[in-house]
Amino acid sequence: MSFAIPALTKTLDTDLLNKINNKTKPLGSLGQLEQLALKIGRIQQTLTPKFSAPHLLVFAGDHGAAKAGVSAFPQDVTWQMVENFLAGGAAINVFSRLNGLALKVVDCGVAHEFGARDGLIDAKISATGTRNYIAEPAMSAAECEAALAKGQHIAHALADSGCNVLGFGEMGIGNTAAASLITHALTGVSLLDCVGRGTGLDDAGLARKRDLLTQAAQRAALPVNPDAKTVLAEFGGFEIVVMAGAMLGAAERGMTLLIDGFIVTSALLAASRIAPAILDYCVFCHRSAEPGHKAQLHALLADPLINLSLRLGEGTGAALAWPLVQAAVAFLNEMASFESAGVSGQS
Amino acid sequence: MSFAIPALTKTLDTDLLNKINNKTKPLGSLGQLEQLALKIGRIQQTLTPKFSAPHLLVFAGDHGAAKAGVSAFPQDVTWQMVENFLAGGAAINVFSRLNGLALKVVDCGVAHEFGARDGLIDAKISATGTRNYIAEPAMSAAECEAALAKGQHIAHALADSGCNVLGFGEMGIGNTAAASLITHALTGVSLLDCVGRGTGLDDAGLARKRDLLTQAAQRAALPVNPDAKTVLAEFGGFEIVVMAGAMLGAAERGMTLLIDGFIVTSALLAASRIAPAILDYCVFCHRSAEPGHKAQLHALLADPLINLSLRLGEGTGAALAWPLVQAAVAFLNEMASFESAGVSGQS
Repeated sequence: MSFAIPALTKTLDTDLLNKINNKTKPLGSLGQLEQLALKIGRIQQTLTPKFSAPHLLVFAGDHGAAKAGVSAFPQDVTWQMVENFLAGGAAINVFSRLNGLALKVVDCGVAHEFGARDGLIDAKISATGTRNYIAEPAMSAAECEAALAKGQHIAHALADSGCNVLGFGEMGIGNTAAASLITHALTGVSLLDCVGRGTGLDDAGLARKRDLLTQAAQRAALPVNPDAKTVLAEFGGFEIVVMAGAMLGAAERGMTLLIDGFIVTSALLAASRIAPAILDYCVFCHRSAEPGHKAQLHALLADPLINLSLRLGEGTGAALAWPLVQAAVAFLNEMASFESAGVSGQS
Repeated sequence: MSFAIPALTKTLDTDLLNKINNKTKPLGSLGQLEQLALKIGRIQQTLTPKFSAPHLLVFAGDHGAAKAGVSAFPQDVTWQMVENFLAGGAAINVFSRLNGLALKVVDCGVAHEFGARDGLIDAKISATGTRNYIAEPAMSAAECEAALAKGQHIAHALADSGCNVLGFGEMGIGNTAAASLITHALTGVSLLDCVGRGTGLDDAGLARKRDLLTQAAQRAALPVNPDAKTVLAEFGGFEIVVMAGAMLGAAERGMTLLIDGFIVTSALLAASRIAPAILDYCVFCHRSAEPGHKAQLHALLADPLINLSLRLGEGTGAALAWPLVQAAVAFLNEMASFESAGVSGQS
């Protein structure tokens, strides 16, 4: 499948910059928030951008490789945490509630039967999660296409319901491992520099994770500059691929995308190889403590809003940065100009 | 006058850390927010801290030295911006509204008569601002004591009305210059490393500012490790001294203090020499682009929450970081534990 993302024009840039520069403040003194206001004005193609029906989606899935020992937590924690999300007790629930984001969980292939539940979107590609990429590809090409299409459909449905800003989060025991393999394959940065402690491996666990992922990379034997869909199918997980599809679908509809940390950025990295124009729509929310995030941000020339040594996932970095994104739009819309406030300018 | 700030005990630390560590998240994965939750639990001496009636105060005052050319803006901008605050059109209005902080402006010595106005607290020490510190001390010792007392009184009145968290901001054309002199005197860092472009001086303006401030420092001829009140009286401004008094008064009442950027931190630096226990009550909100802020943060061993290249003042960094402070308290109170959520722990 393909995605039609309009490349943003810079037609309004001069007017947006004039508006920003005439606010009652020293020139440039709102730093990164000024660049953000410009970006959102561009995305919405207006001098008065407005967010509506903000949502945060947590994409969840299980990984065949998790049972091989790439994580500090047992695989059951994926479905247990989904239950925690549905009950409102996880970090992402707290931060979404606090900051006014509607939270939905997307089951992309958790090895558990939840049934129909409030707040849960069924996008299951497989009832058992991905296959073990150490031995074989995590999914088939057809499953990868189906996952992208499901994500696109979810984003389009949200756009149709009036949502124009979407935060991305994830849950899946073992998914920092998949993100490391994707990041290595798509950026060319050495695998070892893309692998970190995830949820908290000790030194022995980290060494084991590195060994297993080296085996997986050797098994896949991808060429230099591999096709992004091939990379996604090789390493998964389903939550990463459905998320990539949702990102692409959201950008097709002109939404603002709130990009979280390492795993979410691995999905974006793949999405940006499928349709580079997606990057115009992205706000990078936080700098993760997971080392592979650095390689991703470097590849995407991204400078995130906050840096609090977070490494929790779930979209928590996006939810925490969301008030800053709202602040950028608020100052653009609500601050007085030098002229309107009767304030003297710079000499 | 003196201030009685209780040094915080660490009695509850073990229980607070247990509570933080049993939340459904990898150990330490909320990074700086975990340290923040611990700090606020300590300040309020409870496992379930709660903020009430959050306020942001903008302390405003004029500087005799402003007319000598230490700023890119004319002195009239101080009162014009106070009018902008009272009309709701400045950046700090926008961010306070967005993030639920009640905003008050404190007139500590603006060279303008406002009359009685909604949202304005009269704490005028002088109708014309400070004297020009290049030629003479900015204020008398008696004025300095009066300013500290007025600040203390304002904070106590807010505490009596139920407020337990207070953000600090400021407005005063020329006040980065005063903050530079205070920072140099109290940290011993060379004056030139404490002086920046403020609201946007060009190279010639920066050179002039450095020359003028060098004259002021030579005129004052303070000893090494000078008395903090002497430093405040030498260089002002009234908004900085009233603010220092308010900080001390707020800490006396066990409030959480939200510390903004360069000028606010100069007030805190002085306050912390008067009563070192104040630092237990402070949350450092943002890293300013003004170079002298680095010397201050280093002297106070502080690591602020956000770093967005802001250099606007008014308390904007504090108002923008406030949702993160709320998030720290929210996760401590609202997140499920591994046990309560039925989630398996780390292996």
